[in-house]
Amino acid sequence: MPQFGLEEYARRLARTKEDMMQRRIEVLLITSPENMNYLTGYDAWSFYTHQMVIVALDHQPVWVGRGIDVPCATSTTYLPSGDVIGYSDHYVQSTERHPMEFVAQELVRRGLGNHAVGVEMDNYYFTARCFERLQASLPKCTFKDGSNLVNWVRIVKSEAEVELIRQASVIADRAMTVGIDAITPSIRQCDLAARIMQAQITGTESFGGAVPGGLVMGIGPRADAPHLSWTDDPVGSDVVVNIELGGCRARYHAGLARSVYLGTPPDQLRQLAAVVREGMEAVFSAIAPGRICSEIEDVWRRVISRHGLNKPSRIGYSIGLGYPPDWGEHTASLRPGDATELRPNMIFHVILGMWQGELSFVLSETIRVMEKGCESFSRMPRELFVVS
Amino acid sequence: MPQFGLEEYARRLARTKEDMMQRRIEVLLITSPENMNYLTGYDAWSFYTHQMVIVALDHQPVWVGRGIDVPCATSTTYLPSGDVIGYSDHYVQSTERHPMEFVAQELVRRGLGNHAVGVEMDNYYFTARCFERLQASLPKCTFKDGSNLVNWVRIVKSEAEVELIRQASVIADRAMTVGIDAITPSIRQCDLAARIMQAQITGTESFGGAVPGGLVMGIGPRADAPHLSWTDDPVGSDVVVNIELGGCRARYHAGLARSVYLGTPPDQLRQLAAVVREGMEAVFSAIAPGRICSEIEDVWRRVISRHGLNKPSRIGYSIGLGYPPDWGEHTASLRPGDATELRPNMIFHVILGMWQGELSFVLSETIRVMEKGCESFSRMPRELFVVS
Repeated sequence: MPQFGLEEYARRLARTKEDMMQRRIEVLLITSPENMNYLTGYDAWSFYTHQMVIVALDHQPVWVGRGIDVPCATSTTYLPSGDVIGYSDHYVQSTERHPMEFVAQELVRRGLGNHAVGVEMDNYYFTARCFERLQASLPKCTFKDGSNLVNWVRIVKSEAEVELIRQASVIADRAMTVGIDAITPSIRQCDLAARIMQAQITGTESFGGAVPGGLVMGIGPRADAPHLSWTDDPVGSDVVVNIELGGCRARYHAGLARSVYLGTPPDQLRQLAAVVREGMEAVFSAIAPGRICSEIEDVWRRVISRHGLNKPSRIGYSIGLGYPPDWGEHTASLRPGDATELRPNMIFHVILGMWQGELSFVLSETIRVMEKGCESFSRMPRELFVVS
Repeated sequence: MPQFGLEEYARRLARTKEDMMQRRIEVLLITSPENMNYLTGYDAWSFYTHQMVIVALDHQPVWVGRGIDVPCATSTTYLPSGDVIGYSDHYVQSTERHPMEFVAQELVRRGLGNHAVGVEMDNYYFTARCFERLQASLPKCTFKDGSNLVNWVRIVKSEAEVELIRQASVIADRAMTVGIDAITPSIRQCDLAARIMQAQITGTESFGGAVPGGLVMGIGPRADAPHLSWTDDPVGSDVVVNIELGGCRARYHAGLARSVYLGTPPDQLRQLAAVVREGMEAVFSAIAPGRICSEIEDVWRRVISRHGLNKPSRIGYSIGLGYPPDWGEHTASLRPGDATELRPNMIFHVILGMWQGELSFVLSETIRVMEKGCESFSRMPRELFVVS
C-alpha cells in the first residue's frame, strides 16, 4: 500500500507531466529514489542496484528494477503488475551487461524507442555509465536534461506531506532531547549516537520513525567539522558537542541541530550563540510568501556582520522526502543569488552552522512557509545547552 | 587521524598505481566514498555533495570537496593541507556551475590538464552530469574507464581490515540477538528496528559501531520482499520475520541475516530452513583458495535443486568498506559466470535468501577465505528461530 491516496499521486503525476511538456520531454526516466517514491509510493532500500520509474506522457508510471525487488514494488506502490518489470539477476553489478540495456529494451517494447527522453543528469543514481549505456542502446531517442524536474514539483507540499514533516519534527525534538539528556563527560560518543538513533527510529507512541538521511556530530577538537560521525572516545569535558539530526517519518525529514557545552561555556561561545539565535529569529521574521531566497539570507548576513561574523555557506535548503545520503531536495537554497520566490507550504531546513574552530556552534530548525510568515516545527529552546 | 597506519595506505596506493599503469591511466578520479576512504582515510557523511580524491601517478592523493568539509578531511586523513582543496559553497547544487568545473581547474593548475584520466563510470557519486562537465572542461584529457579499479584492489583484505570485519561481525551477532530477543507479537516493527540499530551503533564495551549500509526487514505478508524497512504495525502472530542487518565498524561491514517465526512454524518452512542450512554448510565446505566463484554457487544450486528448489539471484558478494546505500564491493559475486578465483583474505557475505511468498527464509553470514577452507565470523545458530 502506498503512503498516500491515489488522488495525491494523480496530482503529482499531472504536475510532473505539465513540466515535461514544457520542457518537451515525452518520456522521463526517474532514478532518484525520492522521486520514484513521490510518484509511485515505491519505498525500499534497493537503490544500490539500478532501478527507475518510467513516466511517459500517455501512460501510468512503470517501475523497472531488479527481479527480486518486484515484491517490494508490489507491496509499496499502486502500480498494476504489468507495470512492474524486473530484470534478471545477471544484470546486477555485471561487467558484461548493464541494467540500462534492459531498460532500453523495455522502452522499445513499449513503443518509446524514438522519443524525447528526459534523464536526471545529476542524480546520484544516474551514473555516467547509465547515460552512456542508454545513449548507445537507444540511438533513435533524443536525450534531454530532466534534472530536478520532479524535485521542483516537490517543493510545495500538500497538507498530508506537511503533517508527515510535522511528525518528523516531533521525532527530531525527542531524539535531540534524548541525546542532550544522555550527554555526560564519560559517555562514549558511539553510545550517545546509539541512543539518538534509537529515539529517531522508535518515534512516538502514535507514529514510528525511520533511519534518516544522516546523523552527524562534531565533538571537541572536531567541532568545526560539519559532517563527521562519532568515535569510541568519551565525550570529555570543556568541549562543544554539535549534533545535527533528522526526524524521519515515512521518508519525510525534519532537520534539527543544537550545540551542547560540557562545562562552563567560554564567553565567546555564549556570545556566538546569542548572535546566531538573533539571526535565526530575524530570518524567521523575514520568511513569508513572495520573499526571495537570497533576501532571506541577506537578513541573516546583516545580523551577523554587525557582530563581525561571516558564514561562507548557505543557511538553508528545501527539505522533505529523502533517502541517504541526503534529505535536502536540491532545489531552492537560502543563499546569495538564489531567486526562488517563497510560496506557502514550502518547507526549509534553516541551518545556521558557525563552524569556526573548537568553539563552533550550530542551530537549525525546519520551518514551513505559511500564508503569512512562517512557522517552525521545533519546540526546542534556541539556546546553547550546558551540561555542568 | 586516519584509521590505519601510513604504511597500510602506502601499500594500497602502490597497488592502485600498479593497476592504473596497467590500464594506462595517469590520473584516477575517485568519487566512491569507500575508495576515497580506502586511499586517504577520509570518513565523513559529506558525499551528498560532489567530492573526490585525485590520484596522479607521481603524487600523493589530493582531496577536493566542499569548503566546509575541509576540516572533515583534515581530521580524518593523513593528507597535508596543500592537498586538501575546498570549493566555494556556490558550487553546491547550483544550476549555474558544477563542482567538476572546479575539479577541472585544479587538475589544470597541477599540470594534469592533458593526461589520461580514469573515472569511476558506474559509481553512484559519479553522475552523468559529472562526466559531461569534466569532458567539457578538460578538452585535452582523454578519459578512460576506471570503474571498480580500487574496488578490485580492496578485494583482498589486510590483517588489520580482517580484524575490523571480525569486530563488525561481533556487533552483527549482538544486534541480531537483541532483535530476536525483543520480538513478540505485540512489539511494533519500528521499535524492533530501533533496538537493533541501537545495538549496531553501541557495539561492545571494547569497540563501538556505526550506521551500516542498510537494515531491512520483511515481515508477514511482506516476507518475500528483500529490501523493505518497517512499519508502525505490531509484528503479529503466525508470521515470518526476516532480518538482514550489518555490523559496521569503522565503515567495515559484516552482513548477517536470520529468520524468526512467531508461532508454530509450518512444516514447509522448517523443511526450507533445513535445506538452506544444508546448502550453507556445503558452500562453506567448498570455499577455498583456488576455487572459482561460479563453482561455489554451483555447489549450492545442486543442494537445493535436489530438494526441488531454485534461487534466481546471486548467493553472495565481496563485502567490506561501505557507505550507504551499500556494503557490497561491486566486484566478485557468487553466481553463474563469475570467474573470480578465491584467494586468502577475501571476505564474502554469503546470503541465502529464499524469497517465496509468506514462507520466505533468509540465512546469511560473512566469511573469510583462509589458507585452507574458510571461516565464518558469526557464532549465531544456523536455524529458524521460533518465538512461541
